[in-house]
Amino acid sequence: MQDTPEKAAKPKKIQKLRARLPRGLGDRGPAEIAATRRMTETIREVYERYGFEPVETPAMEFTDALGKFLPDQDRPNEGVFSFQDDDEQWISLRYDLTAPLARYVAENFDHLPKPYRSYRAGYVYRNEKPGPGRFRQFMQFDADTVGSASPAADAEMCMMAADAMEALGIKRGQYVVKVNNRKVLDGMRQAIGVADDAQWLTVMRAIDKLDKFPIGEIIKLLTIGRWDGGEEGKGDFTKGAGLDEAHAGALANYIGEPSSENEAAYRYLFEPELVQLARDELRQISEIVTSAGYGDDRIRIDPSIVRGLEYYTGPVFEVELLLETNDEKGRPVRFGSVGGGGRYDGLVSRFRGEPVPATGFSIGVSRLQAALTLLGKLDVTPEFGPVVVTVFDRDRVADYQKMVAQLRNARIRAELYLGNPKNMGNQLKYADRRHSPCVIIQGSDEKAAGEVMLKDLILGAELSKLEGDRDAYLAKQSEAQTKVPEASLVEAVRKILDRHGVKWN
Amino acid sequence: MQDTPEKAAKPKKIQKLRARLPRGLGDRGPAEIAATRRMTETIREVYERYGFEPVETPAMEFTDALGKFLPDQDRPNEGVFSFQDDDEQWISLRYDLTAPLARYVAENFDHLPKPYRSYRAGYVYRNEKPGPGRFRQFMQFDADTVGSASPAADAEMCMMAADAMEALGIKRGQYVVKVNNRKVLDGMRQAIGVADDAQWLTVMRAIDKLDKFPIGEIIKLLTIGRWDGGEEGKGDFTKGAGLDEAHAGALANYIGEPSSENEAAYRYLFEPELVQLARDELRQISEIVTSAGYGDDRIRIDPSIVRGLEYYTGPVFEVELLLETNDEKGRPVRFGSVGGGGRYDGLVSRFRGEPVPATGFSIGVSRLQAALTLLGKLDVTPEFGPVVVTVFDRDRVADYQKMVAQLRNARIRAELYLGNPKNMGNQLKYADRRHSPCVIIQGSDEKAAGEVMLKDLILGAELSKLEGDRDAYLAKQSEAQTKVPEASLVEAVRKILDRHGVKWN
Repeated sequence: MQDTPEKAAKPKKIQKLRARLPRGLGDRGPAEIAATRRMTETIREVYERYGFEPVETPAMEFTDALGKFLPDQDRPNEGVFSFQDDDEQWISLRYDLTAPLARYVAENFDHLPKPYRSYRAGYVYRNEKPGPGRFRQFMQFDADTVGSASPAADAEMCMMAADAMEALGIKRGQYVVKVNNRKVLDGMRQAIGVADDAQWLTVMRAIDKLDKFPIGEIIKLLTIGRWDGGEEGKGDFTKGAGLDEAHAGALANYIGEPSSENEAAYRYLFEPELVQLARDELRQISEIVTSAGYGDDRIRIDPSIVRGLEYYTGPVFEVELLLETNDEKGRPVRFGSVGGGGRYDGLVSRFRGEPVPATGFSIGVSRLQAALTLLGKLDVTPEFGPVVVTVFDRDRVADYQKMVAQLRNARIRAELYLGNPKNMGNQLKYADRRHSPCVIIQGSDEKAAGEVMLKDLILGAELSKLEGDRDAYLAKQSEAQTKVPEASLVEAVRKILDRHGVKWN
Repeated sequence: MQDTPEKAAKPKKIQKLRARLPRGLGDRGPAEIAATRRMTETIREVYERYGFEPVETPAMEFTDALGKFLPDQDRPNEGVFSFQDDDEQWISLRYDLTAPLARYVAENFDHLPKPYRSYRAGYVYRNEKPGPGRFRQFMQFDADTVGSASPAADAEMCMMAADAMEALGIKRGQYVVKVNNRKVLDGMRQAIGVADDAQWLTVMRAIDKLDKFPIGEIIKLLTIGRWDGGEEGKGDFTKGAGLDEAHAGALANYIGEPSSENEAAYRYLFEPELVQLARDELRQISEIVTSAGYGDDRIRIDPSIVRGLEYYTGPVFEVELLLETNDEKGRPVRFGSVGGGGRYDGLVSRFRGEPVPATGFSIGVSRLQAALTLLGKLDVTPEFGPVVVTVFDRDRVADYQKMVAQLRNARIRAELYLGNPKNMGNQLKYADRRHSPCVIIQGSDEKAAGEVMLKDLILGAELSKLEGDRDAYLAKQSEAQTKVPEASLVEAVRKILDRHGVKWN
């Protein structure tokens, strides 16, 4: 077998191929996979209880169908993985699960019940510079209601987000669902009179920094700019949005302290109809969730929530973990957002040429899993491995395989040792590494007597820690290694599994 | 919101974006998703019982790490979806789950127990001309044993394939696992003396046609070529491999009838050591599976099995469905292969520079699901939808949402009707389309009386079919539409769900 050299013409020394993954991509082992499965099953149960039904789209779509709505992507090709099809059309890997859903609903509009309520979990792909906790492939779990303009649909997303967090074992008070309305921001923009898109983007980014900096620093970012080092000339300089002090102050005041004290300043500044509409929607959402029993401790209006994706048009939501922990170097880690969503009334309309209101919510499964892992909230105990039937005599592999088949037919996880059988020690070491509850040995003596030997590895491990008490040791020893007639193999293995609570079915 | 026109310079009429998928890709609805989940859970259970543990790799890898082993890909870029990373390195979507596993094992070699037994399910991507039943994204479910050269490892793959088929509800006799050895083919090649790779590829393709054509036609393909229409000048012409009649005859004879009668011819032609080794391996596999109770009806040596992928080096397996059905136009459909695998001793070695034997098996989940669907062997009954709380008075949405919350807290699937509430008929129609077991209505009369009305939609549907018997009709009618005190809502809904066996927990 050969590597695939790009230029066969130039004779080169054949290099060994390097086994490595592109940056920002990772492999996943048994504990991680099991945890993801438990998480997605839990989320699925909650989404189904809310009346959503599953639908799935493929990992790739026509680039134009997905559109370009990623946050902070200044260059046109950044953000998505794309390639040309054989007929030269551009195809991209999905960067979220919302844009493909919009295409799906538009394509099947006449056949779907409306409002159309659906959910889906899947990997999405971002062609970004990877960093800590920032992957190029990660899993999301979305639910969407298409065809409803009602704030009740948005309210439901917030309640479902809260329910999902608690179902995942995150206690009340350890998370919060924050709600804002893009129309408030649009109203601010109208009131301040920012015509330039780039300037407004800088304003939004400044607001988005509110969880990092105190309000005074935000005002700098909204006006003349900010020095990283705290004073002029110190550290890096971030250019400001160029608002005047009055606008910046009122804006910062409004977003910074979501209490009733700054209602006055708010009203004075932002009176356009759009803001009134936005506030009315937020009030309706608030009423609905309150009446359903979801208080401030779970769902809360927060004017600082922006959400990066550019397709949002109304209410936006964000789930934040309030838990903190330390990383491996002892530095405090804040997890921040582990899910979010909002109303995207324009996304399906792109295809339909008629208004199609829609709202949705997405849990960042990979990000949430990383957070829960750091918090020690995920069960990572390795499961027990299979029963290992060892190979004592390599000419009798068929006999040993027959024992394995007997165990498997009895629905017991079992395998034949398939490595080089010359060393029994290696076989036992292998069984240990696989967390096997027991191994089966049949040497020539046992064969002659029509017996098999069973070693209970869990008991054996306990035995090796026992000290002193000779009677206890001997009693355990006789249990840890037993011989039984060949015909009793399955029964004897079941006894060992039951002894340690290892499931078989 | 705007489309993303490639050339903004040329003013064009803005077109509505077309909602469509690239060819060879498909969306999946609730029944399909549920069926896939049941299938993968079943396969997972079987693979785990065989002692395999899960591991997952990402959907993309460096192109050189995957290698180019797809069958029938004459052009270098055909077959895989590829793009360049920002540092100009080529990345490809995985075209199977074996090549990425080889990279994974090589990368983590020192930390893995050996033999390393693992499984994984996932989508793979092929940049091919799509056709009927030929998709560009499809799901595979693989198991692999790396680090064992023993034919017992290959035998185990075959038994596991058989067990998986039966666990999936495909009865004994409705499938067969066929086994061959690539080394036999290599030995044939040595014996016949075919030096040219392209010529040998033509030979392999001719052999691969054995399930389509009678032996006489295969001999034509092995020698001078074959006219599609049955005689010279009729239909298309397929060029032959150019073997002489004696070699072609012996070859066809050997592969065509896997019985002991042609052993003589076989021995005469193919005596090299490689063939003896191959036959010895096949004999060992046969012994092991027989001793474990797997007879000819499940696992069978078949010299015509080739398997397309180029990385196989030893035993190869194929699972064939023996069931036939008719397509929607009444034409008979044979499903053929729904899974396969084999030994690939060279794939991990590419990275390690030392021999690393390996063998694996893959179930084509998407293909098998398509076959089982055509055969009517998959449950596609739509599940019951959520209880729908209707909106009678749009000012009381918060009250209705509260009822929904009560039901959900009692773990009952429920939702508020989120469409335009002005027409109760539309709300009931919506509930019907969602297969809701019942709807809740609270108009002003009920509100005044502190009651809610429940409509049992399943009973209602039965009612509409009842004819004649007036007493039965009235009895059912009073059950199909009841009023209960607000406080008894949950209890009353549970009663309806229990009446129809709808699960809630």
